[in-house]
Amino acid sequence: MTDTVTLSVDALQQRLRRIFDLCGLRAEASDCLARVITAAERDNCKSHGIYRVEGCMRVIKAGKVEPLAVPEIFDAGKAVIEVDAKGGFSNPAFEAAKALLAARARETGLAALVIRDCLHFSALWQEVEALADDGLAALSMCPSYSFVAPAGGKQGLLGTNPLAFGYPRAGEHPYVYDFATSVAARGEIELHRRAGKPIPEGWAVDKDGNPTTDPDVALEGAMLPFGGHKGSAISTMIELLAGAMLGEFMSKEALDFMGSSALLPRHGALIIALDPAVFSARSGRDPIAEGERLFAAIGDQGARLPSQRRFAARKTAQESGIVLTQAEFAQLERFEAEGLAALS
Amino acid sequence: MTDTVTLSVDALQQRLRRIFDLCGLRAEASDCLARVITAAERDNCKSHGIYRVEGCMRVIKAGKVEPLAVPEIFDAGKAVIEVDAKGGFSNPAFEAAKALLAARARETGLAALVIRDCLHFSALWQEVEALADDGLAALSMCPSYSFVAPAGGKQGLLGTNPLAFGYPRAGEHPYVYDFATSVAARGEIELHRRAGKPIPEGWAVDKDGNPTTDPDVALEGAMLPFGGHKGSAISTMIELLAGAMLGEFMSKEALDFMGSSALLPRHGALIIALDPAVFSARSGRDPIAEGERLFAAIGDQGARLPSQRRFAARKTAQESGIVLTQAEFAQLERFEAEGLAALS
Repeated sequence: MTDTVTLSVDALQQRLRRIFDLCGLRAEASDCLARVITAAERDNCKSHGIYRVEGCMRVIKAGKVEPLAVPEIFDAGKAVIEVDAKGGFSNPAFEAAKALLAARARETGLAALVIRDCLHFSALWQEVEALADDGLAALSMCPSYSFVAPAGGKQGLLGTNPLAFGYPRAGEHPYVYDFATSVAARGEIELHRRAGKPIPEGWAVDKDGNPTTDPDVALEGAMLPFGGHKGSAISTMIELLAGAMLGEFMSKEALDFMGSSALLPRHGALIIALDPAVFSARSGRDPIAEGERLFAAIGDQGARLPSQRRFAARKTAQESGIVLTQAEFAQLERFEAEGLAALS
Repeated sequence: MTDTVTLSVDALQQRLRRIFDLCGLRAEASDCLARVITAAERDNCKSHGIYRVEGCMRVIKAGKVEPLAVPEIFDAGKAVIEVDAKGGFSNPAFEAAKALLAARARETGLAALVIRDCLHFSALWQEVEALADDGLAALSMCPSYSFVAPAGGKQGLLGTNPLAFGYPRAGEHPYVYDFATSVAARGEIELHRRAGKPIPEGWAVDKDGNPTTDPDVALEGAMLPFGGHKGSAISTMIELLAGAMLGEFMSKEALDFMGSSALLPRHGALIIALDPAVFSARSGRDPIAEGERLFAAIGDQGARLPSQRRFAARKTAQESGIVLTQAEFAQLERFEAEGLAALS
């Protein structure tokens, strides 16, 4: 007996689709979540792959997400489009508004999509990559749960607030980055705790704001933003642009509202799409070819582009399938057989 | 005899205005540069204060800036407005288009200003602060000179690429950050070299990409972006959005074009303005009051907001004047008496 099970990308997606159907999600939402989670697993982003299925099921079981929510678009014809997820997952709301966002960006040069009142669990690269595949530069950001202290502080206030960016490329996967604005993910501190290992310096502070390498002390204290006061400023900007400015929850309110980080956060999100064809038109230069010169120069000196490993994993998965552990596969089978009843 | 000279904010501005007039700048440009440099000196941003006068004069004397350039606005009524600086300084171009950018952002929700073909020396906080004083959130970014290696690389390719952000506040100076995306400024490495001191680890690499603390070796090698691969990705994004996407120079081309970092770089810039009133309208919440809750929570835990020291310095300068060293004052007097002839 082998330790692993290999599924094709399509086969995993179908299994996930059946699980979410069984959990009572609206068909479009079920299909969308299955695609999003499969895409993460395909790209070997394990932290946003099938590991997330249980978290999605948990909020459904807890009645903290609207399984039948139909996203509603509000469009006044301006450069800002809104989609209300109505307490459903963020992904179907993004998909419902994506084509309109792209069309508006082409028309006006740049356009913003506000997602209101959504449950959020997925990596933002999926959104910016979809827009970049469509020829647009894109930024995406959202708050999360307030576990990160601002630089110089000692209490969780900012979220791990992810920031993602995509830029289209010629005949290649787009340039895409997507990272948390905290030094490390909260889950990494938890893994160190379980392993009885100290965390690296610079990840967290204790309740009094002193540096700590003790994971227990760190979990009672606060995580730190990446890059010192600069990363802290960027994370604060994300609270403002994707929280305060939209009139949606910031990370502190999201945690207060849900009451526990065992459940996915509910908040808003902001996506900005920019059309390089509009921005460059008067220059007479090709904005995509210009980008290629930069990427070539990065590669020539032996540096890596972000997402390069992810695209390599994708190629492997598309050719040879997605490899799951027996434990992962057994959990999928249990979810598929028992639905929400499989959760303890 | 005292070691310092104190000038009122107005008096310094008038002296600078006379210097730039004498150097042959168009009256509006002269007035604008005098205001921008005085504002930096007033806020105790010495690195962008009167220290910059000589650099501005040097490009005028070298014939590398158009002293009489009249910025030209191109507006197709979209969310993107362009202003061509025509080889003049960036600041008069921004000022020429600022009101139109703000009006467009209020109308459409968000709008972008492209500045084309400008000489750039000033801190970006001035732009985002002006827009935030006008009730708008704002982002500003531009390339510079290619002294920074991408993470994992060893050659200068990215600029020190500044990023600035502003968010309006109620009855207070706006929330404003503005920083280089390199760990340190190039000038700081130069200061260590002159003092014969090693630079801190993490600032730079040698020609082969190995970490170095030797300032001479660092200046022959490359500086590093802040925050490792995350800061490197943000700096790359700035090359793309404020260079490639606009069809304007990226940092490498800017250095190649000017031929020497002794002269100010010529490139483009991107400013995005967002109207919180439009973004929040459907939420029923006040986006400025929401921001205040975040700022209060940051202050309550003893952390500082970016720019707080700058605003404190401004108050002091407005009440008691701007303090210059005798050497600084003597240089101003020489520039005022001799104009460009004062440059060796």
